[in-house]
Amino acid sequence: MAAAAAACRLLRLAPRRLRSPRHSAPTALSLFPTPLSASSGWRSYCAAAQASAPPPAAAAAAAAGEAVGEFRRRLRVAEVKGGEDEGAAWVGKELTVRGWVRTCRAQRTVTFVEVNDGSCLSNMQCVLTPDTEGYDQIDCVTTGASVIVEGVVASSQGGKQKVELKVSKIVVIGESDPTSFPIQKKRASREFLRTVAHLRPRTNTFGAVARVRNALAFATHKFFQDNGFVWVSSPIITASDCEGAGEQFYVTTLLSNTAEGGCLVNNIPSKDGRVDWSQDFFCKPAFLTVSGQLNGETYASALSDIYTFGPTFRAENSNTSRHLAEFWMIEPELAFADLNDDMACASAYLQYVVKYILENCKEDMDFFNTWVEKGIIDRLSDVAEKNFVQMSYSDAIELLIRSNKKFEFPVKWGLDLQSEHERYITEVAFSGRPVIIRDYPKEIKAFYMRQNDDGKTVAAMDLLVPRVGELIGGSQREERLDHLEARLDESNLNKDSYWWYLDLRRYGSVPHAGFGLGFERLVQFATGIDNIRDAIPFPRVPGSAEF
Amino acid sequence: MAAAAAACRLLRLAPRRLRSPRHSAPTALSLFPTPLSASSGWRSYCAAAQASAPPPAAAAAAAAGEAVGEFRRRLRVAEVKGGEDEGAAWVGKELTVRGWVRTCRAQRTVTFVEVNDGSCLSNMQCVLTPDTEGYDQIDCVTTGASVIVEGVVASSQGGKQKVELKVSKIVVIGESDPTSFPIQKKRASREFLRTVAHLRPRTNTFGAVARVRNALAFATHKFFQDNGFVWVSSPIITASDCEGAGEQFYVTTLLSNTAEGGCLVNNIPSKDGRVDWSQDFFCKPAFLTVSGQLNGETYASALSDIYTFGPTFRAENSNTSRHLAEFWMIEPELAFADLNDDMACASAYLQYVVKYILENCKEDMDFFNTWVEKGIIDRLSDVAEKNFVQMSYSDAIELLIRSNKKFEFPVKWGLDLQSEHERYITEVAFSGRPVIIRDYPKEIKAFYMRQNDDGKTVAAMDLLVPRVGELIGGSQREERLDHLEARLDESNLNKDSYWWYLDLRRYGSVPHAGFGLGFERLVQFATGIDNIRDAIPFPRVPGSAEF
Repeated sequence: MAAAAAACRLLRLAPRRLRSPRHSAPTALSLFPTPLSASSGWRSYCAAAQASAPPPAAAAAAAAGEAVGEFRRRLRVAEVKGGEDEGAAWVGKELTVRGWVRTCRAQRTVTFVEVNDGSCLSNMQCVLTPDTEGYDQIDCVTTGASVIVEGVVASSQGGKQKVELKVSKIVVIGESDPTSFPIQKKRASREFLRTVAHLRPRTNTFGAVARVRNALAFATHKFFQDNGFVWVSSPIITASDCEGAGEQFYVTTLLSNTAEGGCLVNNIPSKDGRVDWSQDFFCKPAFLTVSGQLNGETYASALSDIYTFGPTFRAENSNTSRHLAEFWMIEPELAFADLNDDMACASAYLQYVVKYILENCKEDMDFFNTWVEKGIIDRLSDVAEKNFVQMSYSDAIELLIRSNKKFEFPVKWGLDLQSEHERYITEVAFSGRPVIIRDYPKEIKAFYMRQNDDGKTVAAMDLLVPRVGELIGGSQREERLDHLEARLDESNLNKDSYWWYLDLRRYGSVPHAGFGLGFERLVQFATGIDNIRDAIPFPRVPGSAEF
Repeated sequence: MAAAAAACRLLRLAPRRLRSPRHSAPTALSLFPTPLSASSGWRSYCAAAQASAPPPAAAAAAAAGEAVGEFRRRLRVAEVKGGEDEGAAWVGKELTVRGWVRTCRAQRTVTFVEVNDGSCLSNMQCVLTPDTEGYDQIDCVTTGASVIVEGVVASSQGGKQKVELKVSKIVVIGESDPTSFPIQKKRASREFLRTVAHLRPRTNTFGAVARVRNALAFATHKFFQDNGFVWVSSPIITASDCEGAGEQFYVTTLLSNTAEGGCLVNNIPSKDGRVDWSQDFFCKPAFLTVSGQLNGETYASALSDIYTFGPTFRAENSNTSRHLAEFWMIEPELAFADLNDDMACASAYLQYVVKYILENCKEDMDFFNTWVEKGIIDRLSDVAEKNFVQMSYSDAIELLIRSNKKFEFPVKWGLDLQSEHERYITEVAFSGRPVIIRDYPKEIKAFYMRQNDDGKTVAAMDLLVPRVGELIGGSQREERLDHLEARLDESNLNKDSYWWYLDLRRYGSVPHAGFGLGFERLVQFATGIDNIRDAIPFPRVPGSAEF
């Protein structure tokens, strides 16, 4: 075994090229004419090559160009095993699987190789015998190696799957040194996996998170598109200091003087000892956006209903499991709409995306239900099916006071609700139903929220869900010019910076409302993943922007 | 008239509140019980309010919460006029339109008000008579004002539309001072409109661009999702200096010391006269990403086929009509794929999205065809229907030399193709067919592209289209560890920075390929818009990050 492994390592050098497709695509092609895949309309690796193999033509003919091959959807394990019958209908069919080895178990007469191609949680169990073509490479079939296996689907004797692949041929495409591959079968901690974020999607958990995240994103687009909303890309870099620069990242080219050993402070363009922003790329200080809302409002004031879906940033020094410096936000904005429309839209949206993943990511959701958060499917089903509850902030305060529960933070009208309060309301008082709290004291909410007639509260709403607390925050926007200007003054904000935002109230102002949703919070909510750093492929947090 | 306008302006002050819904949503509701809209299942402004009007309940009852109203898709002008019959089926039906006034033409007995709600290019022509309820507000019905109009759909006598709305009631929601509203009927220049980017989506051109941009984005998601690709959000902030920092923006919190009058250079954290990155937010220099490709490859090496769709950045000081500092990129990555698969995918993708807008944005495309680029529909139909052509870089060079055409830049094997060459190939040599050039000299292409066996070229491809030139650039990636390391050395790049990228070649490496597409270039290509600054809502260019 050790000798064989050594042979494999040797083969990684030049001579290997002669026998393995690893270094030469055309060789792979000749190894796999795969008439079946080609004729069945599925894409097989290099399927298009036939159309483009350079013909032995004269230069003039070549200059006339050749056709581009037809693109075909690739056959994936999910196509075979993802249906209700878990693959039974495929029994007897010949097919080719391309993927990565999860495990390899040698028994007396057969070897079981679990191959995963990332299309679903399920591996294809591949059954090899010493007669299998390519069996001489078996010592290279280790965890993490990439392989192409060809065979016939058969009913499986094992209890874990309905079908398996009786392999006629296996080719190792890329090896994986078992002594150094960081992701071994034994469960690695999430903390460790963050240090190998480039490899963690090859684990069950992170593969499932990636697929559910993808499904949530597509469901988001589908919901809004089906309802006539237009996706608007709000700007990422912004020179308007609308949001207060405290928690914003600066975007600059002033630090790019690359003297040997680093940027010399004395070479930073300055005037009277101060940074000279006029020499910066945008000729003034520029920041990463913290929200696309204000820009979104401009398009809602023209196209009626719009949504943004893009990255936003906070330079907040919070090293918690709930904060990221870079995260994706979804911010719809509805014209001719009030807080009731806003709440209705937020509820319908959340129910839609939750239903979508329960229906389209069954296998991954079962995995989370078993391994990550027991009961998550019930919790999400509640959200998808039960009517949401709404109540005013004042009523919520009263409910909390009457509960006689000891909270760490005091409950008092005028103070913001803390996570413990939010979770009590949705988890205890309403036993798992999402709850919307509306009409918050204006002092604890943003300047752009519409003042209610009571003079004390604004038409804001927070949607609270079990486990996560606040998932969505929204409001009806102040559409009255005089009210908005008064609020800017009260908040010591510079009206001139908001000239274009105020213009929306000068020219054809309409009642409008919207909300914001942190996409990674939604991923946490939908998968049960504890730490928000595991809900995004490459998390950015204080002190770390690796990969 | 002047007196009436003065009266309108006065009404904007407090007394107005009593008679207009502008300042009070509940008033609007009572003005518009709209039983029709409510019963027909469409959302009307404040439709949900019925469900949530606070009942006169005791505090205890309130604390039990109330139901959230049902969300309904809003009825839009596109629903009425967007069908094949241009609204004929709606004749006789009562409905409510909410939107912004484009024009108001008073004739002897009737007044025509064109109302646009952004859902389509078409306005709803609204016919008012002195008997119309709210007619006393007619002097406030000016370009840019927002209105709610209720009436019955009737066949139109005018030749420009099939149907119009006989208005029974009009309410001005938000006025628009005609003397200062920047967007008047006369055609404003695109340059001017960029200075009012918050209002320009209210013009025909920018409304159409926004809708087509939205359709292209959704078609992009649909194409990849239908083909089993997973959307991956590649990071925006990156501390890896993989791409060479020359054209990158720095992301920092070191400049946030906010002394009176600006950031003091002396207060920037430093060590030995150099910026002390260890005190920055990420404890090292961090940049805005220029491409998500390398990160995308990590996920393709686990999930098989993925795509990114997010913003990317270049701190390039190019003040041209083709460059933005901030733009959106689509970067698919295919595992177990070679350059042929890549070309096939790029072609299929482009044909799909072009077909999608030709089918789904007919009215907007007709507008572009008439007003922006004559013949664009034919040009795009060619792209959607004709087979793409591919040829090698070497053949392309020969073709250019044989053309005997005088080019500004010389044509010689080894030099990069310039825009004039690219456009000659696709526009002249192949009369409007998209052409893919493949197998470029390795010296002019990136280090990660797979070396061909000739030792001189790499498996790169550029997809050229008429008018725009290069729209898509892609390659098969170098999956062989030794080759990739050699290329890094040749390119004087630091291998240590690429440890995780190299890991993909250490553990289960697979042949893979992908491409990148600048989304705003696609919008230009699909709409005929000349300047890329008009293809994105809020363009960021040297010296400007307004709004």
